[in-house]
Amino acid sequence: MNAPESTVTETKYRVLGTRPTRKDGIDKLTGRAKFGDDIFLPGMLHAKVLRSPHPHARILSIDISKALAYPGVHAVITGKDMPKLDAEVIATGEGGQVNMQDIADNCIAKDKVFYDGHVVAAVAADNPHIAGEAAKLIEVKYEILEPVLNVRDAIKPGAPVLHENYTPGAFLFPTAKALPNAGRLQMGGGDVEAGFKEADFIVEREFVTKAVHQGYIETHITTAEWNPQGTLTVWTSTQGGFVIRDFLASFLNMPMNNIKVIPLEIGGGFGGKDVVYMDPLAAVLSRKTGRPVKMFMSREEVLKATGPSPETYQKIKIGCKKDGTLVAADLYLLYEAGAYPGGPVAPGCACATTRYNIPAVRIDGYDVFLNKPKMKPYRAPGATQSNFSVESVISELADLCHMDPIDFRLKNILKPGDMMPLGFPCPPLGTVGILEAVKKHPHYTAPLTGPNQGRGVSFAFWFGAGLMSSAEMALNPDGTVNLSTGSCDLSGTRMTLGMQAAEALGIEVAGITTSVADTDSIGYTFQSVGSRTTFATGLAVIEASQKLLKEMAGRVAQIWETEAENVLCAQGVFTHKHDPGKTLSFPEVARQTDHTGGPISVAVSVNPPSVGFQVAANLVDVEVDPETGKVTILRYTAFQDVGRAVHPDYVEGQMQGGTVQGIGWALSEEYVYDDKGYLRNPTLLDYRMPTALDVPNIECVILETPNPSHPYGVRGCGEVPIVPPPAAIADAIKNAIGVRMTQLPMKPGAVLEAIWAKAEQAA
Amino acid sequence: MNAPESTVTETKYRVLGTRPTRKDGIDKLTGRAKFGDDIFLPGMLHAKVLRSPHPHARILSIDISKALAYPGVHAVITGKDMPKLDAEVIATGEGGQVNMQDIADNCIAKDKVFYDGHVVAAVAADNPHIAGEAAKLIEVKYEILEPVLNVRDAIKPGAPVLHENYTPGAFLFPTAKALPNAGRLQMGGGDVEAGFKEADFIVEREFVTKAVHQGYIETHITTAEWNPQGTLTVWTSTQGGFVIRDFLASFLNMPMNNIKVIPLEIGGGFGGKDVVYMDPLAAVLSRKTGRPVKMFMSREEVLKATGPSPETYQKIKIGCKKDGTLVAADLYLLYEAGAYPGGPVAPGCACATTRYNIPAVRIDGYDVFLNKPKMKPYRAPGATQSNFSVESVISELADLCHMDPIDFRLKNILKPGDMMPLGFPCPPLGTVGILEAVKKHPHYTAPLTGPNQGRGVSFAFWFGAGLMSSAEMALNPDGTVNLSTGSCDLSGTRMTLGMQAAEALGIEVAGITTSVADTDSIGYTFQSVGSRTTFATGLAVIEASQKLLKEMAGRVAQIWETEAENVLCAQGVFTHKHDPGKTLSFPEVARQTDHTGGPISVAVSVNPPSVGFQVAANLVDVEVDPETGKVTILRYTAFQDVGRAVHPDYVEGQMQGGTVQGIGWALSEEYVYDDKGYLRNPTLLDYRMPTALDVPNIECVILETPNPSHPYGVRGCGEVPIVPPPAAIADAIKNAIGVRMTQLPMKPGAVLEAIWAKAEQAA
Repeated sequence: MNAPESTVTETKYRVLGTRPTRKDGIDKLTGRAKFGDDIFLPGMLHAKVLRSPHPHARILSIDISKALAYPGVHAVITGKDMPKLDAEVIATGEGGQVNMQDIADNCIAKDKVFYDGHVVAAVAADNPHIAGEAAKLIEVKYEILEPVLNVRDAIKPGAPVLHENYTPGAFLFPTAKALPNAGRLQMGGGDVEAGFKEADFIVEREFVTKAVHQGYIETHITTAEWNPQGTLTVWTSTQGGFVIRDFLASFLNMPMNNIKVIPLEIGGGFGGKDVVYMDPLAAVLSRKTGRPVKMFMSREEVLKATGPSPETYQKIKIGCKKDGTLVAADLYLLYEAGAYPGGPVAPGCACATTRYNIPAVRIDGYDVFLNKPKMKPYRAPGATQSNFSVESVISELADLCHMDPIDFRLKNILKPGDMMPLGFPCPPLGTVGILEAVKKHPHYTAPLTGPNQGRGVSFAFWFGAGLMSSAEMALNPDGTVNLSTGSCDLSGTRMTLGMQAAEALGIEVAGITTSVADTDSIGYTFQSVGSRTTFATGLAVIEASQKLLKEMAGRVAQIWETEAENVLCAQGVFTHKHDPGKTLSFPEVARQTDHTGGPISVAVSVNPPSVGFQVAANLVDVEVDPETGKVTILRYTAFQDVGRAVHPDYVEGQMQGGTVQGIGWALSEEYVYDDKGYLRNPTLLDYRMPTALDVPNIECVILETPNPSHPYGVRGCGEVPIVPPPAAIADAIKNAIGVRMTQLPMKPGAVLEAIWAKAEQAA
Repeated sequence: MNAPESTVTETKYRVLGTRPTRKDGIDKLTGRAKFGDDIFLPGMLHAKVLRSPHPHARILSIDISKALAYPGVHAVITGKDMPKLDAEVIATGEGGQVNMQDIADNCIAKDKVFYDGHVVAAVAADNPHIAGEAAKLIEVKYEILEPVLNVRDAIKPGAPVLHENYTPGAFLFPTAKALPNAGRLQMGGGDVEAGFKEADFIVEREFVTKAVHQGYIETHITTAEWNPQGTLTVWTSTQGGFVIRDFLASFLNMPMNNIKVIPLEIGGGFGGKDVVYMDPLAAVLSRKTGRPVKMFMSREEVLKATGPSPETYQKIKIGCKKDGTLVAADLYLLYEAGAYPGGPVAPGCACATTRYNIPAVRIDGYDVFLNKPKMKPYRAPGATQSNFSVESVISELADLCHMDPIDFRLKNILKPGDMMPLGFPCPPLGTVGILEAVKKHPHYTAPLTGPNQGRGVSFAFWFGAGLMSSAEMALNPDGTVNLSTGSCDLSGTRMTLGMQAAEALGIEVAGITTSVADTDSIGYTFQSVGSRTTFATGLAVIEASQKLLKEMAGRVAQIWETEAENVLCAQGVFTHKHDPGKTLSFPEVARQTDHTGGPISVAVSVNPPSVGFQVAANLVDVEVDPETGKVTILRYTAFQDVGRAVHPDYVEGQMQGGTVQGIGWALSEEYVYDDKGYLRNPTLLDYRMPTALDVPNIECVILETPNPSHPYGVRGCGEVPIVPPPAAIADAIKNAIGVRMTQLPMKPGAVLEAIWAKAEQAA
């Protein structure tokens, strides 16, 4: 990563802010690291699924006899083989946020199929080829139903109804039962009509964005082994073992202690691997066959049947005074939920305008069910869509006011201490600092060098998450330390957690090994989602370090025959308060644990009430080819307040990776469904993620406004980088060719059509 | 196991004393359980070793070129490839008890080979067959040295010297540098000469016992994977992951946190799997090849090169008064150490007479080096040998006094409160109870039914161990509990630890899953040796349970908005002290941890200063065939004070298994070396372990004298059952045919020769 180190604030820290080499690096580069596909168990079977060829249909009958008779086939299951969930289980999913029956039915259809690719049966066989061949022999009779294929059609009166009865989805915030195919969420405050009356300028625009996939390189893969005594072990690619365990416990009516989930190395997740797809099927097939069962998805299966981020339709109306003061916003947001309730409309709504002080805001959000795969979180879920639309309108208002777009934003920016729409004052956060950093960055004033070039900006806000984490720490007799946590390592968190431990303990990073424990071996830990791991699990690690030092100080007191309060500890050295020459080093104490009471091990679990807000800005130069509509990115600078850059390389990696995903979303990625509801581009040839040739180096500017909810100021950094690119690129396109795009992706064809439309209008 | 349940004392416990079904049972029966040989890693190589064909020789040169050139060979190592240990490491092995250089040299010879089967080189290849073939191509030039083959010859002046310089071994107690081929250990107190002057009867006898192997069914097997960044993962069959890790750290100059040892299911250990053999070789081969390397031993390799329990020569002189009062004992004990210092002479000496009050005792013990494999602990290490001799003399003295052998022992028995030779009063212990139980058992007075039948008794004492253990406990949201410890499960300890947790927490056993953690994921834990796991790790588990309940009570207090001291907890129900109708069940509290501060996980490490002494007695009927010398066991009753039988099935299993091993030792097992020092019976056809046809059902009588050092009275039970059989069977043979055997095994040939010698004497 090429950002200059100097962008990181000088700190008082010894370990934080340095860039040690990660221990899992060579393993990952050389293929030694154990991923889901590296699991081979004696007697293991392989399973493949049969998927619905129809986007919307009722299952009339399934005849598995031919598949069962196929040589090498050991078992075939359908939705009828899955245990029935009781009402309590259905209601208590993830603290009431998720309808467990929906998640279960999404794994394998019961009575209806809801999308092209919905699983209807699964076959376990000697190898995946036999399983795949046999799956084709399963005969399913369907009553084909009319599909619902976009968010605007879905809520029209008379649209086919997907779910006669449904529990409204509740991703982060609950939605209310509303239209037949949607849940509804209303947010905001203030008198919007009165606000607009004060406005000198009002911009009202419609925006459309398409579904995009998380695009993790490793597809889903799982291996399940059922023990006849009623225990289950699952090796899986996931962002969090405990949530997988809890889903399985619910779906299979098992006590949690009888299920062990072993999370493996993960080849990307981005929010898309926080749920079960094949795990319960593999488990039931293993129970049926008495053998371990492995399942993996092809890329086509991943694109067809695992959660993308939703398409949206948005109507945005924002008004401001001549001096640039925002007065009112009225947002109508249709977010696709996919086949079942619970898409990311809530955070999409909540992040839409939170970064600005607007006295009157009305947000009317809908979680719209379509005959498409169930939507999943994707890096700052829901925020990119509403950021694109709102930031585009903000830039347009700035233009109307003839104001510098950064000055316009600075005028309205949420500042620490300002009351947030969430009902509490904004904590310390670099909202102003980020925008000022953009303004004073050389990129902001560098001249553009050719025709059809333009520069764009945008600004983004994301919540981050707190939630439950556990850490355990054991002191080795040689003074090294083993740290284990329940947090799957998506982005180097073994290192960033180990660095926090090293900082807190006063020892070298090399002296700490951090591992990801399975669900049998650590306290409850929520998934690695919401930029929470370095922040929330970090809190558990720091507390565990403090506990360990306290125990060690007790041992030192015992050795010195004094009171514990006379033992001071700093930088890995224990000193006698009243005799500073009397010291014991960290390893010296470690060597003496044996005869001073035994080994030292500590465990800590936390559920922090706080989170780490993230803000980011983008500055981008593009050149648009007026002949083809192709947008080339010339220069890109990403700005972000990360609180504390524990390992700046990884922070830059998050910023660059998120930005590139945002660029893909902006320019090339989209789900292409035909008018019958079939996905037409389920391959990485046709679903166009950016390659190294499509993006320049992303320059990173890291700001560090310490998060007061974390001893080292960490606020998490993984999600917000994906949010600003579409709006910034749209702004740059506008400044290059005078056309403001209102749809994603801004692919050549779309840009060209916009150019033609403008020309027509001018003519 | 067929012992009647009624032998277990009625207790106040809800869980302890019941016999729940173990969760790993079906896995083990059906071959699903993961043992060392179930590890398969991508790109894995297989290694075999070349072993010395000479019992004693100097290595002049090793030419590996032909082996290296063999197709499919990836690396060859010799002793020169192993890192040199620095002096500090050598000295600090296991707290100074073990000379680390010896353990390292035992893994692969450096300059000299010390026994038939000593490793001189190792080859990593595509498969074990290639590795084995290539190993044969290694050309070693030896200077053959005269071997030292038995304990009496080894200490004669002029005997060939094995080690010019040596650190005396120190298994449990330190020995002093003594004769060229021996360390010496002296114990005892009182005026022995004066004691013997008071004696009316003095018996002085010589005894000889042969080396016997632990006989675990699973041979040694290990897989090592070295990471170029300097970390190492080892999957191995061991009694304790941490000790393996620490050996590897010492041998390979690595910090402990860079090594992860994953202990697998173990197919028997009995003391023989507490050390490294192939692990460091596999590690170095993996470093050299960049690939994972797997190694396993054949049965022949196990018998030739892994530690048996030593041969001994013992001269025992004990005197008593006419009334049976013991007055003095003088013991001269030569225990084989094998190739390197540190055999089990110390516990052999310490347990020799400890169970009796003898005013004057002199024990002169020697740890004698021979050109045979390095001796290892085997179930109550060293105690069986000296118990055989001392109990035989005690029975002979009882005969001389015309006293009932139990009465004789009762007269001299160590009682709780009596000062022990160890320097502290005997804690509560069923010494008297055990002997009284023997006397009143129907077996004791049942008539014998034929000629050449006899009944024998014996009585045994063993220390048990305490040492370091760690446990972690995490509460699941459904009220089940995950418990993990660092203790390898040799005998059902996952269950016995889980039962202690269930008892302490007040929940059902089914609600607890106990797992064995790897060395990265738990606090330091010593091996599963010394009958310590259910006792010492149990202490950690109980403390962890108390910590968990305390945390839960805090949450209940929070929910009830009261002080923690007002929350009572018993039998899994939390009750308000001042409002007994106000209750919350264990699962109800678990479900509410999320919003009362987060998950609950606790960690505890202990190093108990105390241990659990074990005493046992045997009662056995035999019939001797005077034509062939064959001894048939007709009836066998084993008595043992186990403190608290946590799971009586497993206690009975330990008693029966240990007794059968003792029977093998008594009647058929022995290492047969020829006069050149070659092991002549390195197969299970020629090394004769008892089969089911050789032993009757072992009746078990469990006594429970609670161990005051454990809240539930547990004192460990795994080791002492092996101790009494040889003496009891010898006593029965004497009572059957009038011949007192003084050698082990008492195989048909030996018995026949004794019969002939007696006949000759009589003639």
